[in-house]
Amino acid sequence: MTTREDCAALDARDPLAGRRALFDLPAGVIYLDGNSLGALPHAAKARLREAAEQEWGQGLIRSWNSADWINLPARVGAKIAALIGAEADEVTAADSTSINVFKLVAGALAMRPERRVIVTEPGNFPTDLYMLQGLAAFLPGVELRVVEPGAILAALDESVAALLLTQTHYRSGRLHDMAGLTAKAHAAGALAIWDLSHSAGAIEVDLNGAKADLAVGCGYKYLNGGPGAPAFAFIARRHQAAFRSPLTGWMGHAAPFEFSDAFAPANGIKRALCGTPPVLGLSALEGALTAFDGVTMAEVRAKSVALGELFIALMDARCAGLGFSLVSPRNPAERGSQLSWTHPEGYAIVQALIARGVIPDYRAPQVLRFGLTPLYVRFLDIWDAVEHLVQVMQREEWREERFKQVAAVT
Amino acid sequence: MTTREDCAALDARDPLAGRRALFDLPAGVIYLDGNSLGALPHAAKARLREAAEQEWGQGLIRSWNSADWINLPARVGAKIAALIGAEADEVTAADSTSINVFKLVAGALAMRPERRVIVTEPGNFPTDLYMLQGLAAFLPGVELRVVEPGAILAALDESVAALLLTQTHYRSGRLHDMAGLTAKAHAAGALAIWDLSHSAGAIEVDLNGAKADLAVGCGYKYLNGGPGAPAFAFIARRHQAAFRSPLTGWMGHAAPFEFSDAFAPANGIKRALCGTPPVLGLSALEGALTAFDGVTMAEVRAKSVALGELFIALMDARCAGLGFSLVSPRNPAERGSQLSWTHPEGYAIVQALIARGVIPDYRAPQVLRFGLTPLYVRFLDIWDAVEHLVQVMQREEWREERFKQVAAVT
Repeated sequence: MTTREDCAALDARDPLAGRRALFDLPAGVIYLDGNSLGALPHAAKARLREAAEQEWGQGLIRSWNSADWINLPARVGAKIAALIGAEADEVTAADSTSINVFKLVAGALAMRPERRVIVTEPGNFPTDLYMLQGLAAFLPGVELRVVEPGAILAALDESVAALLLTQTHYRSGRLHDMAGLTAKAHAAGALAIWDLSHSAGAIEVDLNGAKADLAVGCGYKYLNGGPGAPAFAFIARRHQAAFRSPLTGWMGHAAPFEFSDAFAPANGIKRALCGTPPVLGLSALEGALTAFDGVTMAEVRAKSVALGELFIALMDARCAGLGFSLVSPRNPAERGSQLSWTHPEGYAIVQALIARGVIPDYRAPQVLRFGLTPLYVRFLDIWDAVEHLVQVMQREEWREERFKQVAAVT
Repeated sequence: MTTREDCAALDARDPLAGRRALFDLPAGVIYLDGNSLGALPHAAKARLREAAEQEWGQGLIRSWNSADWINLPARVGAKIAALIGAEADEVTAADSTSINVFKLVAGALAMRPERRVIVTEPGNFPTDLYMLQGLAAFLPGVELRVVEPGAILAALDESVAALLLTQTHYRSGRLHDMAGLTAKAHAAGALAIWDLSHSAGAIEVDLNGAKADLAVGCGYKYLNGGPGAPAFAFIARRHQAAFRSPLTGWMGHAAPFEFSDAFAPANGIKRALCGTPPVLGLSALEGALTAFDGVTMAEVRAKSVALGELFIALMDARCAGLGFSLVSPRNPAERGSQLSWTHPEGYAIVQALIARGVIPDYRAPQVLRFGLTPLYVRFLDIWDAVEHLVQVMQREEWREERFKQVAAVT
């Protein structure tokens, strides 16, 4: 049976242990929600101050050149590219994940003009579905084929323009086989679009190895870019010349400062830009990404798996019979960097944990979700989180939280 | 003839003189480009630090509730509403101006399903035209009718879904008659959409007085929200129930945290939201807007006009015969809060002024553009800027800048 001392020993020999000092973590908190909002890296704070106080405050408009704001989306994109198996000139950062989903799906439809079907799955993080629904309501003839994972292959026929999937399931952490499904999409003549929101910075992603066509992802989860951080978009180099977004703002223009009346797309990934990029948010994200400098995603993944295996073993040993049911795959190769259990009192248990300074999150219905962020979560944190959970259950602290919830609603 | 002492006296009795201390302006700079990027308000800096270092760093995910991030777009929107003649629940802030143009024009087309023409003008800031072009290329049957201002009335027929105009021309500062043109659009059965990018925070705007239907605007010009600040969108209350955006992201959902698979629009202005809002950028903008607390837009406008009249008088008196030609309307009622002159050596003259610490901007072809931002520009700054310009011309300092430009290109 693993002990707290064993966990301390795991931390002592963890090659990523030093990374935790790069983050400004609040005292007395065990943060297991980096899959929702990553913690604040010191470098993000410093870079944001520099961008706001020096570049904006002192440089003013001159900073578009002197601080190279104009290339900030590309610079941030290149840093993200290195984490997801893409080339530096295949990724840019700006706008939200939702907006980038729209750009890429619309762009895929334009690349497959004779096909009007988009295949996706139900029950994953819904903004992708919502954006598809908005697009389909708006653009005549577009059809959404929303099928359970087991029916995806059967749904890929010659009418399908693109397959859009979130690689890591936001609730269960279940992983899709990116290379396999991309190959199946290609065999049907369709494009494969991957949402990496719960993958980028968390697991090893190899977009080009998988021959993915297009991808989007979130800047504020495992990339630690801050609340509402800019998202990123990937367009494989082979598609860039043909890619057309309907969101043709001036920053995607070949010569934005000529102020001509006719849109002409920039070369390369830059054509995926739209309006003026969010310089403050991009700067925070640029600083945050330095937390990955000098580590490989293989190291990050190895620690993530080790944290997860420890967590499951401790839950099996200490919380058996307390009503928890693991909804994440037991096989670490089949899950991302999070673990989820259901419990009938899930909401109240999460509130009781938060009251103790352990922060997971709750996702309806009944899911307790724990994000494992290897750059700043320790093995000891997993031990302590489970210890807190055991105490919450033994002392029935969730009962008071359930009472509060009922009181708040009625 | 006005003297430098006269200008100092104007500052001494300027009711807005104290506002300048709210901004963190670099020493030795006369900043006349607030129409491109507003200066840094101390309150924006403080609010941004609080959002990043306390709310994100210490509060982490809890700040969606404890710092009320979830209502940040509405809170910022309400503050902007007060500056543009709108009700607090008619404006929200998020995404870029370009993205919001797309939402509103697409929304207008959905509200006029039997009409497919959008009327606009050529030669204004082009991102609006670019977004229209992207939309028209994407959505079958949409027609852009791009006509000179004198032909707008004739272009408004029963096929027109919406008239989209930027109220204040980005290059000349020329104002459109918002109330008059909105009435003409309505008489033709069309909706009126106003881009307030060069108006909001600069002039008195009365959206509801003009019966405007929809509007967008920029957060980083006269609102001083910082580089790439979130933009805003206005939907008149009477249109909110019918409004549908094609960009239906999860933050525009009636119940985003139910994570249901089907999109259902939120009530009111919130349905104009799309992805997760840019919390850091919104926080800077929220802080920045406090610079307007306790002043009326009538006061701001009165000082803007006085600054402009002084600038024109000094240019007439001191730069006559040097090749400058005013392209902004001489009548202050017909222009926004900027003045532009053409000069054959415009680019080089702007560079020579910047070398002296006077920052206007250059807009091809030949335009020197000076933004007058009443919260932090002094009458003395206008005197000194003209004095610098006189010296640049007398000493022919622009010749060296022209040489550098040629050298850089060749």
